[in-house]
Amino acid sequence: MQFAMQPERHINVVELESLLDYGFRDHSLLLEALTHGSYQLPGISRCYQRLEFLGDSVLDFLITSYMYNLYPGMSPGQLTDLRSSAVNNDCYAFAAVKAELHKHILHASPLLHEQIKNFAESFGKLSLQSTSGWGSETTVPKVLGEFIESLAGAILVDSGYSIETVWNCIRPILEPLATLDTMKLHPVKELGELCQRDSYENKTSVSYVDGKASITITVEANGVSYTATHTGMNKKDCKEISCQNCVGEVESKHDKIIVASSKLLSLQFGLAIQSSN
Amino acid sequence: MQFAMQPERHINVVELESLLDYGFRDHSLLLEALTHGSYQLPGISRCYQRLEFLGDSVLDFLITSYMYNLYPGMSPGQLTDLRSSAVNNDCYAFAAVKAELHKHILHASPLLHEQIKNFAESFGKLSLQSTSGWGSETTVPKVLGEFIESLAGAILVDSGYSIETVWNCIRPILEPLATLDTMKLHPVKELGELCQRDSYENKTSVSYVDGKASITITVEANGVSYTATHTGMNKKDCKEISCQNCVGEVESKHDKIIVASSKLLSLQFGLAIQSSN
Repeated sequence: MQFAMQPERHINVVELESLLDYGFRDHSLLLEALTHGSYQLPGISRCYQRLEFLGDSVLDFLITSYMYNLYPGMSPGQLTDLRSSAVNNDCYAFAAVKAELHKHILHASPLLHEQIKNFAESFGKLSLQSTSGWGSETTVPKVLGEFIESLAGAILVDSGYSIETVWNCIRPILEPLATLDTMKLHPVKELGELCQRDSYENKTSVSYVDGKASITITVEANGVSYTATHTGMNKKDCKEISCQNCVGEVESKHDKIIVASSKLLSLQFGLAIQSSN
Repeated sequence: MQFAMQPERHINVVELESLLDYGFRDHSLLLEALTHGSYQLPGISRCYQRLEFLGDSVLDFLITSYMYNLYPGMSPGQLTDLRSSAVNNDCYAFAAVKAELHKHILHASPLLHEQIKNFAESFGKLSLQSTSGWGSETTVPKVLGEFIESLAGAILVDSGYSIETVWNCIRPILEPLATLDTMKLHPVKELGELCQRDSYENKTSVSYVDGKASITITVEANGVSYTATHTGMNKKDCKEISCQNCVGEVESKHDKIIVASSKLLSLQFGLAIQSSN
């Protein structure tokens, strides 16, 4: 027993078990999965992060297997992009709020409280379409997605490593999973592919000021320079947002002429086909 | 059946099954797992990469679960570093050559032939200690590690998704798995941690020349600039090697004075303790 205290005193076991459609043999695992590092009470010795470590990998494996079987004709590259689009923290965070799991998280951080509250409030206003990707300027509290993983880890351990049980419990929460039509490329990958395709140079510079990371992405596109900078606590998030914004810059300004001329071309091509019929 | 041709005509099924300690129900899965994209024969419709996609995630999950259970007191951060040290392409590539799996790969690429030959020859000369990490200047053919993953994927599918079977077959090939004593940090992470710890600025610049990526890492350490560049076909490898070399530069030159003074300090401290006893 990791938790000497009675789990039922801290979490609503009945509601959570109904939400997950799973009855825990060991309620202390459920408590561990929902306990943030800031929530310290005597008898509570550890937080959700070990279960998150485990749950992260079981969810990756389950979604990978699912996609492997669902799309027998899909190329490995497409499968990888599709998986990245479904197996990512933002997706999990949206799923957590949709299932109202955020109400059950045990923490004692005023900052986290504010972030979760803001995110949950803005969640209703965001369309599902815009929530399946990365690089959103709305701060997605990372911890929310991580709790989906820690819950998956808790069910895995509690069920004696039954991956089927984990899938049956977590899949409904994650639905709808990304499909070829709804998937979005990761911004860092999107920028990389854009630059490689068009032989643009790109530079990333990182600096730290007062413990915050500041990431600047610069793309040199045929003599024109595009730059995007983002500063924040999390370097990875900053890179994603900078890349997302830089791709947006390049696409909206630089590619305008190219898109316009290619549209003209397809219009002409369409007319040519029409006239030949 | 994905493969119309008889697998036994292309691969040594008996030897491979003995090597993996597993008897395949469907030999065509074993054939698929060992077929590189360059090996094209009528009737062979696909390469190892879909199985690699699947096997990658099952190995990650299996090693994660193993470490989660083996180290119940380990912090999530240490677990993550330890997993990264065991779940990486270089480790898998070394394991593939040690098990002589490289002799069974079906390909028709003279370049790959040369790379595998060189790597297998140099393998004997390298100590096991130096082979458990990344950033090695010895070109590790990526494909070798990927075949460990595709074989894991093939066993997974053939065994009806029995993760225990995959573990029993692949674990002996991967042994010895990284432990806290033998693990190495990923060079990109090592550089990031170094810069964050000492508030050094670091910059990454990427350029493409003739389809090759050139990555330059620059670290500004208290007014002194350290730079490392690596050029190659694979951007990720280039980044790893540049980071590895840049860490080496900083540590050997910049930190020399700090190390020297800290050694002096511990010597003095040691003497102080000795004299106080």
